[in-house]
Amino acid sequence: MLGKRNPEVYGYDSLDTVYENLRTKVSQDNLSCSLDFFQSNSEGEIVSRIGEALFDQTNGIIINPAAYTHTSIAIRDALEAVDIPVVEVHISNIHRREEFRHHSMTVAKCVGQICGFGIHGYELALEALVKMLQEQEEKFTL
Amino acid sequence: MLGKRNPEVYGYDSLDTVYENLRTKVSQDNLSCSLDFFQSNSEGEIVSRIGEALFDQTNGIIINPAAYTHTSIAIRDALEAVDIPVVEVHISNIHRREEFRHHSMTVAKCVGQICGFGIHGYELALEALVKMLQEQEEKFTL
Amino acid sequence: MLGKRNPEVYGYDSLDTVYENLRTKVSQDNLSCSLDFFQSNSEGEIVSRIGEALFDQTNGIIINPAAYTHTSIAIRDALEAVDIPVVEVHISNIHRREEFRHHSMTVAKCVGQICGFGIHGYELALEALVKMLQEQEEKFTL
Amino acid sequence: MLGKRNPEVYGYDSLDTVYENLRTKVSQDNLSCSLDFFQSNSEGEIVSRIGEALFDQTNGIIINPAAYTHTSIAIRDALEAVDIPVVEVHISNIHRREEFRHHSMTVAKCVGQICGFGIHGYELALEALVKMLQEQEEKFTL
Amino acid sequence: MLGKRNPEVYGYDSLDTVYENLRTKVSQDNLSCSLDFFQSNSEGEIVSRIGEALFDQTNGIIINPAAYTHTSIAIRDALEAVDIPVVEVHISNIHRREEFRHHSMTVAKCVGQICGFGIHGYELALEALVKMLQEQEEKFTL
Amino acid sequence: MLGKRNPEVYGYDSLDTVYENLRTKVSQDNLSCSLDFFQSNSEGEIVSRIGEALFDQTNGIIINPAAYTHTSIAIRDALEAVDIPVVEVHISNIHRREEFRHHSMTVAKCVGQICGFGIHGYELALEALVKMLQEQEEKFTL
Amino acid sequence: MLGKRNPEVYGYDSLDTVYENLRTKVSQDNLSCSLDFFQSNSEGEIVSRIGEALFDQTNGIIINPAAYTHTSIAIRDALEAVDIPVVEVHISNIHRREEFRHHSMTVAKCVGQICGFGIHGYELALEALVKMLQEQEEKFTL
Amino acid sequence: MLGKRNPEVYGYDSLDTVYENLRTKVSQDNLSCSLDFFQSNSEGEIVSRIGEALFDQTNGIIINPAAYTHTSIAIRDALEAVDIPVVEVHISNIHRREEFRHHSMTVAKCVGQICGFGIHGYELALEALVKMLQEQEEKFTL
Amino acid sequence: MLGKRNPEVYGYDSLDTVYENLRTKVSQDNLSCSLDFFQSNSEGEIVSRIGEALFDQTNGIIINPAAYTHTSIAIRDALEAVDIPVVEVHISNIHRREEFRHHSMTVAKCVGQICGFGIHGYELALEALVKMLQEQEEKFTL
Amino acid sequence: MLGKRNPEVYGYDSLDTVYENLRTKVSQDNLSCSLDFFQSNSEGEIVSRIGEALFDQTNGIIINPAAYTHTSIAIRDALEAVDIPVVEVHISNIHRREEFRHHSMTVAKCVGQICGFGIHGYELALEALVKMLQEQEEKFTL
Amino acid sequence: MLGKRNPEVYGYDSLDTVYENLRTKVSQDNLSCSLDFFQSNSEGEIVSRIGEALFDQTNGIIINPAAYTHTSIAIRDALEAVDIPVVEVHISNIHRREEFRHHSMTVAKCVGQICGFGIHGYELALEALVKMLQEQEEKFTL
Amino acid sequence: MLGKRNPEVYGYDSLDTVYENLRTKVSQDNLSCSLDFFQSNSEGEIVSRIGEALFDQTNGIIINPAAYTHTSIAIRDALEAVDIPVVEVHISNIHRREEFRHHSMTVAKCVGQICGFGIHGYELALEALVKMLQEQEEKFTL
Repeated sequence: MLGKRNPEVYGYDSLDTVYENLRTKVSQDNLSCSLDFFQSNSEGEIVSRIGEALFDQTNGIIINPAAYTHTSIAIRDALEAVDIPVVEVHISNIHRREEFRHHSMTVAKCVGQICGFGIHGYELALEALVKMLQEQEEKFTL
Repeated sequence: MLGKRNPEVYGYDSLDTVYENLRTKVSQDNLSCSLDFFQSNSEGEIVSRIGEALFDQTNGIIINPAAYTHTSIAIRDALEAVDIPVVEVHISNIHRREEFRHHSMTVAKCVGQICGFGIHGYELALEALVKMLQEQEEKFTL
Repeated sequence: MLGKRNPEVYGYDSLDTVYENLRTKVSQDNLSCSLDFFQSNSEGEIVSRIGEALFDQTNGIIINPAAYTHTSIAIRDALEAVDIPVVEVHISNIHRREEFRHHSMTVAKCVGQICGFGIHGYELALEALVKMLQEQEEKFTL
Repeated sequence: MLGKRNPEVYGYDSLDTVYENLRTKVSQDNLSCSLDFFQSNSEGEIVSRIGEALFDQTNGIIINPAAYTHTSIAIRDALEAVDIPVVEVHISNIHRREEFRHHSMTVAKCVGQICGFGIHGYELALEALVKMLQEQEEKFTL
Repeated sequence: MLGKRNPEVYGYDSLDTVYENLRTKVSQDNLSCSLDFFQSNSEGEIVSRIGEALFDQTNGIIINPAAYTHTSIAIRDALEAVDIPVVEVHISNIHRREEFRHHSMTVAKCVGQICGFGIHGYELALEALVKMLQEQEEKFTL
Repeated sequence: MLGKRNPEVYGYDSLDTVYENLRTKVSQDNLSCSLDFFQSNSEGEIVSRIGEALFDQTNGIIINPAAYTHTSIAIRDALEAVDIPVVEVHISNIHRREEFRHHSMTVAKCVGQICGFGIHGYELALEALVKMLQEQEEKFTL
Repeated sequence: MLGKRNPEVYGYDSLDTVYENLRTKVSQDNLSCSLDFFQSNSEGEIVSRIGEALFDQTNGIIINPAAYTHTSIAIRDALEAVDIPVVEVHISNIHRREEFRHHSMTVAKCVGQICGFGIHGYELALEALVKMLQEQEEKFTL
Repeated sequence: MLGKRNPEVYGYDSLDTVYENLRTKVSQDNLSCSLDFFQSNSEGEIVSRIGEALFDQTNGIIINPAAYTHTSIAIRDALEAVDIPVVEVHISNIHRREEFRHHSMTVAKCVGQICGFGIHGYELALEALVKMLQEQEEKFTL
Repeated sequence: MLGKRNPEVYGYDSLDTVYENLRTKVSQDNLSCSLDFFQSNSEGEIVSRIGEALFDQTNGIIINPAAYTHTSIAIRDALEAVDIPVVEVHISNIHRREEFRHHSMTVAKCVGQICGFGIHGYELALEALVKMLQEQEEKFTL
Repeated sequence: MLGKRNPEVYGYDSLDTVYENLRTKVSQDNLSCSLDFFQSNSEGEIVSRIGEALFDQTNGIIINPAAYTHTSIAIRDALEAVDIPVVEVHISNIHRREEFRHHSMTVAKCVGQICGFGIHGYELALEALVKMLQEQEEKFTL
Repeated sequence: MLGKRNPEVYGYDSLDTVYENLRTKVSQDNLSCSLDFFQSNSEGEIVSRIGEALFDQTNGIIINPAAYTHTSIAIRDALEAVDIPVVEVHISNIHRREEFRHHSMTVAKCVGQICGFGIHGYELALEALVKMLQEQEEKFTL
Repeated sequence: MLGKRNPEVYGYDSLDTVYENLRTKVSQDNLSCSLDFFQSNSEGEIVSRIGEALFDQTNGIIINPAAYTHTSIAIRDALEAVDIPVVEVHISNIHRREEFRHHSMTVAKCVGQICGFGIHGYELALEALVKMLQEQEEKFTL
């Protein structure tokens, strides 16, 4: 299972903390999954990275499309095309901010959305994604 | 800490499962908190129940305002009045459904929102709420 | 078959007339159905009453959600959940009144709508509902 | 009393069934009225036919303006001009279909609207119209 | 010069009065022009009649598109195609009526609009049109 | 004369102060009226309480519909039905708050509105209501 | 009868021509009326001038509110208060210009509107106003 | 303390009554304040008069911006600049009138609004303003 | 296969050219199809002509609904009813013209749209339609 | 060249500073132009002052229409009529303030807009205006 | 002449088929033109590629801006800048999909649009473009 | 101090002129600042370049986000993150162009905006920025 992450404008330190936290969670909770991280300010690169998921056996995506959340039809189309479970994470509660941040263009192609819990949201997303994939697997095993 | 829950029109069985799951999580994860459950179809009763939180030392609320999410200014005002952390949960991904379900009137008075993960969302919410309250406490202890 | 009715602010006399008229129609037209009446000013109670229809073998609902017609997502969700034929009745022609009365939130979960014919509308609704249920039954008998 | 009907794109067979059903109802229920039918795809012809009602002692109109329901100010003006009771019928529940079908331009000049009950709606309309005209007459006889 | 007129739902008498009044004005004011009248409830016929003006040397049009004023792009396109001065007349002050009558789709292709002066508006329109054509002619004569 | 009051989420103390202030005003200003108080979080109960005014000879209503101000067509309909003078009071200046609080659904069925003067607004409302009723009475006495 | 006129930003020469043309028309057509002219760039002065019409026996007003047409509720209220026939004139066809010029705030308080015929529009307005007042007078004389 | 008043289009008599009533109230209720009145049809003059309040030790303003209520950003800015308590009064219940009168541009810079109580509203406003200023003073005296 | 065409206000010559061009293309490209042409200014006649396609074994429609493109729900319903491939053609690029021409009511019931290439667009449409029908046929032959 | 200035509600001192700064700039930068200042709270007076520019050989205008920026069609029309370069200045960044301040009615008739740089904006505007006029002159001299 | 193509999220195979089909068409139809292909997920790269057309003698562009169609002002500006004929192609009928796909930001800078015919649309576009360029050339040769 | 510049589609020559003009101004006006230039068509690269300003001691930014002005939440967020003074420049007066260019998504995070003065606008921006930074410095030195 892969958790994939995305562009933030909050510097690189905190991004490393997020990576570290997720890795810690994987080992502590004994989750049988490997993680792959990606960060870019370019809408096109994000679209390309999502598209690669078709070829590298990614099982799931955790995405924080930041500013592109509200406008990017391209990311929305890419998420629809890969057809694997996606969880959308926002560090802040986007519904308390400017009006134009209330609408998410991408969430319609995600399983669900977690917002407002700071970088802890990524860990909740990972937990949700792993659970979802386990249940899916169990169904297929039967 | 109190996790409080709210109206659904999906029958009582699944509600019991939610209660059970949350209780299991508390004992398994060794969370030091007690839970109190509440369900009502009446907007007024929900408002009253939230108001009581002012007097019974509730530390946090997990709420699924169901259909009232999108219209209830009364619940919004009640949540604002109690001034403790609130987490909004939705079983379905409300952003994939009818246009009028995309907007939440209550989320602006919540810490965050979790939607789309079925009844597992309540457990994620509990985890998020407990973490939030622990960090708050640590700050005060210092 | 059950015809269920709902909140009006027009006093109790006329409500009794409606009940009487419906009972008269049942006996005159020799309709094989029993009627159950319900009136409440509370959105929550109406939601609950609709929900009970899941357990008491109601075959159909005639509803006049009055003011709640235009705003109640809760009643809409309840009607969707019970999954039996519903007929929406309005005493006045709501499309001739204030702009905000032109839109019905609940009608999308009903078979049809009858409005503008005064309390006679309830009898038309009963006739429509009985016919619909008879045709349904015939299909199953075959 | 005249029941007048209007354009459908559903072929002529079903239209004949509607006519037949209405004639049957008149004889079965012993209604003292004669029926006159009219069908056209042309907005202008419908307007003209309504206008003739001023000269041929029509007592009432049952109309299904189909696609013109939502846009035709001309039919609306014609209905207003003839000043006799009009009942608007729709075979489908227009409130469950595309957004642009929720609004009726013509219903504001009708006594009421019946929609969602298939071609049975015409019979309900006839019943409503006859009742209305009888009550009107009784008032004048007194 | 031709004054051309258009659909009304107000019966034929008053239409004859309008014709008579315009003829009287032509002879009384000694206007050197001949009049041609046209009335139809059909948008398509009105479009066709306007189109003929290209071939019959009409110098000007007085039009009252009644209900079609607010919706007919077809009449608008026809008026644009003939490219001669058009005066739009409305018997009532359309700006005092329902919201949807405030907007005219056709007036953007007319020289001007006269509304609110009853059938006297047609005579004002004729006067305006004749004056306009005289000034045009004087320019060309020079 | 009756002053009737309504739901707030601001606790019970201040509500008692409001009651006390109004009683004081009645005795100090020598107003010949008796007061009856009512508070509820339930839209349905408020509707019912207003409906009772038809039977208990209430002469006037002072109402603060709080959050329901902006959405409740049911309360609006109830106020219209009782047909006695109603004064709408808001403790805060609702026009300075969130956009959705600027519109009042209920005020169209009230004589007037007083907002922004804290709980003093209730006394102003009582004064306005008494004056109004006195003038009404004088008219009838003549 | 008084024809009153209003602010334009097109210089004074053409304004004098308008005055002259109107005076010529009065003498040529033998109209029994006297004219009074007024021009101001100030919304407040225009409001005041209209208000004076209550005291100086003005029988009618011809107004071109220019830019204020589209925004001035004050002029609208003033026109409503004086309660005599008003004709709104626009030199250009306002419906062919910027979107914000299509709506007139003042026309709802006028008998009618004439636009698009250049300064000739004032003469048409005078003719319309005189005719209207003559018909009114005849009714009263009877 | 100064109560300042503003433009109405309802003639001067009633304005004098308002002045008289306010003076009577001051002496009867023994209010320690002097009043200053101002009326103008000009938005600019109203803005200037409000601006003077900065220099003449006005303690409060009672304003009825009439038609300018709904459009004047200039008056809104002026009220914001003087930074003393302002009470907005409307003789009619503006929320029952045309849609465009429901929104007040100026009320966001006022303490509160009183509407619908006829000219009695000015006295209620004065009472509210005096009370507010007394409480303010008491705070400072402490 | 049938190519059907529709109302234009651009005179009859160019229409003949279109017919000629299409016939030439059929013989030059050796397309095995026969063409049938239709032109009308009447929305109703167009609706009727489309309806006939149900009975005359038409395999496809090329339509240019001109002005009716943007408003005609009737043509949209007719196209939906016949259930054969339809190609919408516009001579001009409608997306560069007035705002109200950007939206097509009919295109949602078409396979595709070709606009902006002058009368050459009809030939492109024919080519697209023939290709589509050939592929369809091949599937059925297999 | 003339720099013309306009209404502010920020007192007279700062206005004098603006005048002084502009005069200083003219002498320091050796600009060959004379300045003329104007301030008014009245929309009408501003319109009149702009209109005078037609007669007094003004070469350019620097305007800060303050609150009138967002609503005044009259000032817009006046600026269009004088047909000389106009620069719009705003002391604050209007795009960061209330929504209704984001739109400028007047800027469409200006060369450009400078906002957000405090009173320094006037000097920037003067510099821009002088440069523009010099380039214009050079073209004509050639 | 250059046909240029653009970002799709449908994998590379089908893109190669498109290229192949276009090359086949060029040789089969004996078109005297060379093709150059370009694909990118990055809005900025697409803008840059279009910009290069200014320097490399491109005679025409076939573009499928995919998701950027609906939001990219940058691509629109680039297309406007190069000032050569552009044809917009969409594989699906964008007018049948989500509301936000109905509007194209780029089509206003194109000659025309072809949508709904799958990858065959590219060949139709090439045919249209070649024809257009031939006619242009003929004009210049004369 | 750094002036940073941004994407244009107007070729490279004029961009060099802008750079040259700014360098000339720095030396002529003896401004103590160094300049750094940047141009990109990619939204992501612009975001990254702005982000670097956090690490390279940039004191201010002059930005022309061209087409991205109206849609880019990403650039807006980047500008907010760096928290140094930003001046937005537009070569044309964006408020005179298409409706969608009137709104700037980025200006809310800028000190101010200068538009409509051609490439001279960059020099005005530099002057404004230097002045702003000098005043800031003086405050800190004290």
